[in-house]
Amino acid sequence: MAVGSSNDFDLVVLGAGTGGYTAAFRAAQLGLKVALVDEDKIGGTCLHRGCIPTKALLESAAFADRVRHAKDFGLNLPGEPEIDYAQFAARRDAVVKRMWTGVKSLITKNKVTWVEGRGRLDGPNKIRVSQPGEDGTPGKGGERILQATDVILATGSRVKSLPGLEPDGTRIVTSDDVLKMSTLPKDIVIVGAGAVGVEFASMYHDVGVKVTVLEYLPNIVPLEDLEVSKVVQRSFEKRGITVMTNARFDAKAVSKEKDGICVMVGPEGKEQSELRAEMMLVATGRAANIEDIGLETTKVETDRGVIKVNGHMRTKEPHVYAIGDIVGGLWLAHVAAHEGITAAHTIAGESDVHEMDYDAQPRATYSAPRSPRSARPRSRSRRPVRPTRSARSRSRRSPRRSSVASTRASPRSSRTPRPRTRSVSMSSARTRRI
Amino acid sequence: MAVGSSNDFDLVVLGAGTGGYTAAFRAAQLGLKVALVDEDKIGGTCLHRGCIPTKALLESAAFADRVRHAKDFGLNLPGEPEIDYAQFAARRDAVVKRMWTGVKSLITKNKVTWVEGRGRLDGPNKIRVSQPGEDGTPGKGGERILQATDVILATGSRVKSLPGLEPDGTRIVTSDDVLKMSTLPKDIVIVGAGAVGVEFASMYHDVGVKVTVLEYLPNIVPLEDLEVSKVVQRSFEKRGITVMTNARFDAKAVSKEKDGICVMVGPEGKEQSELRAEMMLVATGRAANIEDIGLETTKVETDRGVIKVNGHMRTKEPHVYAIGDIVGGLWLAHVAAHEGITAAHTIAGESDVHEMDYDAQPRATYSAPRSPRSARPRSRSRRPVRPTRSARSRSRRSPRRSSVASTRASPRSSRTPRPRTRSVSMSSARTRRI
Repeated sequence: MAVGSSNDFDLVVLGAGTGGYTAAFRAAQLGLKVALVDEDKIGGTCLHRGCIPTKALLESAAFADRVRHAKDFGLNLPGEPEIDYAQFAARRDAVVKRMWTGVKSLITKNKVTWVEGRGRLDGPNKIRVSQPGEDGTPGKGGERILQATDVILATGSRVKSLPGLEPDGTRIVTSDDVLKMSTLPKDIVIVGAGAVGVEFASMYHDVGVKVTVLEYLPNIVPLEDLEVSKVVQRSFEKRGITVMTNARFDAKAVSKEKDGICVMVGPEGKEQSELRAEMMLVATGRAANIEDIGLETTKVETDRGVIKVNGHMRTKEPHVYAIGDIVGGLWLAHVAAHEGITAAHTIAGESDVHEMDYDAQPRATYSAPRSPRSARPRSRSRRPVRPTRSARSRSRRSPRRSSVASTRASPRSSRTPRPRTRSVSMSSARTRRI
Repeated sequence: MAVGSSNDFDLVVLGAGTGGYTAAFRAAQLGLKVALVDEDKIGGTCLHRGCIPTKALLESAAFADRVRHAKDFGLNLPGEPEIDYAQFAARRDAVVKRMWTGVKSLITKNKVTWVEGRGRLDGPNKIRVSQPGEDGTPGKGGERILQATDVILATGSRVKSLPGLEPDGTRIVTSDDVLKMSTLPKDIVIVGAGAVGVEFASMYHDVGVKVTVLEYLPNIVPLEDLEVSKVVQRSFEKRGITVMTNARFDAKAVSKEKDGICVMVGPEGKEQSELRAEMMLVATGRAANIEDIGLETTKVETDRGVIKVNGHMRTKEPHVYAIGDIVGGLWLAHVAAHEGITAAHTIAGESDVHEMDYDAQPRATYSAPRSPRSARPRSRSRRPVRPTRSARSRSRRSPRRSSVASTRASPRSSRTPRPRTRSVSMSSARTRRI
């Protein structure tokens, strides 16, 4: 039977985001016969509704901001620069399309079978795929049943709002919505100051939108070290972004009006006042897509909304693996890719595959200022540092390094405030010069 | 005796470049009493005449280039932007000054004794420092003799020209010279297409200087993989930079004329023709500063112009170590820093200091397009990959990864040509998305 027409596979990967396609390609490279199933385009959240389009916008926005300081860099520009956000959006979409086309071409190159449709497990070795019709109508194309020795679940996640706060796509919006828009609001309230919230805050501010950020917790970018949060917040405020931490408001009482939204909000325990804006961006996290994929037909276990796996991404069902956002963890595309590689090698029967080490995964928030967070330095993980004065002072901190290094590191960032560091460890000094 | 007035030290570091000051600070943090000797400002080549000022210029130049494509990014600029190179230079110098001031403040913070002057070994445990007078005249301040249990030599390197081609600082220049200039030539011939040559080629082109690059070898950026060389060369040529590989000319016959230089040049075995330019930048490498530092008073051995050391940076003289450009290797500041840390921990008596692993040192050429070269991927170095089809095809290549990834990686680089890759290894795929 020709490749592509069989329904028997060594491996079926359910979900073609960064984790899923990485796993599929690697497994195929390791000699397995692989099917990759998705109802949507290959690329997932990262490529279509996440990192990539956001970074394209951030790049344009940072450029717009730099143009305002052109003189400092030695460039004299006559007259006032004008922002054409429709072109921001057009470039964003072109970048996504170019990268998507590239990734798509790897399906054939890796001899992976692409199965379009919505798949769900029917027991651990069978996947029912509800295929779209020729006109694209979901389910109209009938069902295709795939048999698989092993399955990797990689169904990703979706944006999540607050209880009682229903995004409508125009006034109350999610990152999915704004990444489709080609116009700008006059002002925006951003709910949630994690990576998504601060990246959009930074982007919108740079293009002249009045931005207010509301964070429930005491600090913005709450996953980063307190030091980093403080630096980002100071920088935001200096640039003119309004930041409210410990923010409290009644999600059910956000009122949609003709020209935007209105909400009563204040810091915890303090008086609330009226806040109006043309748009409210809800950036309050994501939910894993673990429903309606047939987990109940297997021994797969979940815990607080995510699938339980071991260090090799194996679920409680021996031949079913799970990777990416559905296993929780860091919710990052490159981590999903690494999990996919781990699963693929394990499934290919290698005995010496190292377990996932989440401490070793770098990450970054791409607002201005950026906050990269590097992996635990290799030298430190390999051998214990003798507890000297400086080592002791380091040991009181998180074992992971985190800094606002890239922005203060290079001549790119003359306007970034310097974070205070407690000790001169050469590891941080080294990041300063390349 | 108060800190700073004694002449007895656990460690004297000769040379305060990136390697030297890193070693000194780390050793002090490890509890050693350290003196740091240099006749020049702390920071060395990287900070004052290398990476840092070059990157400041490259940043301005890349910005100037992007401004030409502002419309693509969604920015409408009225009229023609104008380059003010004097401001490029002013910003370059301001960046250097800011970083130098920062590094300088770490001397006191780390309780390192700064000894200004030209030092040389007088036997393995003694350093004679010829100090400048109050007016700065070298040697006028008399001699200070330092006693040291251990010594780290970190005297760095200097620009090197071709035999018979004498830089005069105006028409025939080195990177030292151009990093002091605040004007631009109309056109420039750059001799040598290593990192320095291509970075300046890229920078000068971006600010409107007509650039011709002459490379003796068959490929530009000859230390990189052939694939990378080709991509950079194609990109350069597409942008309008003239690149001649296998270039041959008589270095002694370069004539200095009133308005520039003139040289007969052609590819090997082909006819030569006259090439004129206002300036010739000689970027033909560097020479280690191993002369006149008293090596002959010790058992230190040299080999082809650099000092021989073991994996812990120890020379043949047990208490004399050498780091940075004087030991050859990669001639990179961050590698020198790592060597300095290795030496410092070894001198501090730690028994488990890992040896320098030059395969694990990342590096980058910061021209446009950039060519980063990452360390050998950790997962690959830790466990052998099963020889599958793709692994076999990889094994024919260098074990180190190298790519033009950062430029094709992100939305930043829509105009960068894509390098062809032979196999879809996930390691390269992973660099594509963050």
